[in-house]
Amino acid sequence: MTKNKEILFKKPPVGPVTDDTFELAETAIPSAGDGQFVVQAHYMSVDPYMRSRMTNVKSYIPPFELGKPLQAGIVGEVVESNHDKFPVGCYVSGMGNWANYTVTDGEGYNQVPSGPAPLSYFLGILGMPGMTAWVGLTKIGACKEGDNVYVSAASGAVGQVVGQIAKQMGCHVSGSAGSDDKVAYLKELGFDQAFNYKTCGDLNKAIATANPKGIDVYFENVGGPMLEAVLNNMRFNGRIAACGMIADYDAASASDVSTSPRNLPIIIGREIKMQGFIVSNHTKECIEWIQQGSQWITEGKLKYRESVAEGLENAPQAFMDMMAGKNFGKQVVKLV
Amino acid sequence: MTKNKEILFKKPPVGPVTDDTFELAETAIPSAGDGQFVVQAHYMSVDPYMRSRMTNVKSYIPPFELGKPLQAGIVGEVVESNHDKFPVGCYVSGMGNWANYTVTDGEGYNQVPSGPAPLSYFLGILGMPGMTAWVGLTKIGACKEGDNVYVSAASGAVGQVVGQIAKQMGCHVSGSAGSDDKVAYLKELGFDQAFNYKTCGDLNKAIATANPKGIDVYFENVGGPMLEAVLNNMRFNGRIAACGMIADYDAASASDVSTSPRNLPIIIGREIKMQGFIVSNHTKECIEWIQQGSQWITEGKLKYRESVAEGLENAPQAFMDMMAGKNFGKQVVKLV
Repeated sequence: MTKNKEILFKKPPVGPVTDDTFELAETAIPSAGDGQFVVQAHYMSVDPYMRSRMTNVKSYIPPFELGKPLQAGIVGEVVESNHDKFPVGCYVSGMGNWANYTVTDGEGYNQVPSGPAPLSYFLGILGMPGMTAWVGLTKIGACKEGDNVYVSAASGAVGQVVGQIAKQMGCHVSGSAGSDDKVAYLKELGFDQAFNYKTCGDLNKAIATANPKGIDVYFENVGGPMLEAVLNNMRFNGRIAACGMIADYDAASASDVSTSPRNLPIIIGREIKMQGFIVSNHTKECIEWIQQGSQWITEGKLKYRESVAEGLENAPQAFMDMMAGKNFGKQVVKLV
Repeated sequence: MTKNKEILFKKPPVGPVTDDTFELAETAIPSAGDGQFVVQAHYMSVDPYMRSRMTNVKSYIPPFELGKPLQAGIVGEVVESNHDKFPVGCYVSGMGNWANYTVTDGEGYNQVPSGPAPLSYFLGILGMPGMTAWVGLTKIGACKEGDNVYVSAASGAVGQVVGQIAKQMGCHVSGSAGSDDKVAYLKELGFDQAFNYKTCGDLNKAIATANPKGIDVYFENVGGPMLEAVLNNMRFNGRIAACGMIADYDAASASDVSTSPRNLPIIIGREIKMQGFIVSNHTKECIEWIQQGSQWITEGKLKYRESVAEGLENAPQAFMDMMAGKNFGKQVVKLV
């Protein structure tokens, strides 16, 4: 390539994200200044948390800047370098632009091995989503052997890892997803129970059936009516690890449409703990996961499914599809 | 007295409780069977949690039985006894009927000293509400010196104790209440900041002003729009001890009116922990509080304000007034 392509943040969305949010630009390939290096991204990640960065709501990371490229987790090859730790030819992961090339001083970057795991796994099961699954389930959810674990968005980037970790830990594991294909995949992964939340009818009953003893640990990926139905099925001293509430992200930017649970007082009588978390605040457990996860992958104990979009110009559509649940597994965009 | 009076549970309320819910009955004074004793209640308690017992919602305690007397915390004198541990003439506290006389086998009853603390305190600061304050603040809220603590319903049975404990622990303490008199009382108790939530205008701003550094520990007594405004003002790693959500109790029995917070996803980025609790599950800390609280009362370090209704026939009105926030301090009914 002799040119760089970037996706710029053009217009903050109100409600669901549309094409207007993005603008494709052709720019020069950046060059590395002192202490910098240039990464040619092989894969970039699209994730639900990015929706929060498209609004001005006070959050744990600043909003995207209008007129600038959006940012994403990337994994790729160093093609020019003035940085001792990241020589030309090595593979790295870190936060880059929605672009073919990103220039960086290396903050937050790590070298990654070029095998045996596929490079894209460092955006998924061995990257932020995998770490999120590990931290949320074991630390925030305080999951232990014999617990009854329920995961929403269970075939997604995080959910499929949560379920498989819980099985490795000796738990009863149930999950829901938005198509029969996805449900079949959950059973293939070893989930004890799985159902299609779009066709199950009464969500309360479907959750009760999938969790005959109730729920000790709920890994919360979606919010909204799902959280309400889950609360009805939580056991005494249950834990809710709140990783994301994708159903509420669009609503938060629109008027006053609420998808919040109407039965929150249930947490009182059952002494339920609900705790939010951001994976980047738990470095020790993240490192733990890279070791544990790599080992389990090498031993063939974990599977990981991805949706791969091709080409930077298709990144906006990949993001919108992912927000609408049209992806199957971790959504990435292949750039090389 | 030669007759007993009881208040029976006549009709489950939908929405706010009305007179129809109750029926006054005149019955014979019960007598003590084997291993039983009869308590003449001097005071009975009315508390928000009773509202949950008036519906069929699955809860930590069973609903009141239709046609039977409602139940309440009582404190009084043993007037007839076939029980070794509770002889005639001793004073006891425990769960009794909305009635002048209750017969019991003594389960859950304790003897209480007839001085120096007023007998009614064993339904309040040295009873369930005081224990609730201690458990919620120190154990569930994990409050420590220097924390910024905010209490809603701060002049109520529980809230006024929460604020005073937090001051003893060296915290910045703020609270809200529903009248200027109550706000003045909070300042008298040593609250650093206090405001009238009914006249403050923008609740978000009022909370921000009363908590200039944000909130580390929120003692949740009310739910609804208050919880939503509090979430906006929580600090990173904040804790919410959910003791009650009085605003939601009526709604839970009505159709689908929601007063739940619309901004729940805030808990994710700020790693907020929200946990419900029931005081009776924390016996060790309850005993701890009776010792600590009694000592502080003796040392003159704690104040406690009560609203006293007179006569059993006024108990329903006292309950309804308390639910509407018309009481000032712990609401009890004086029966002797």
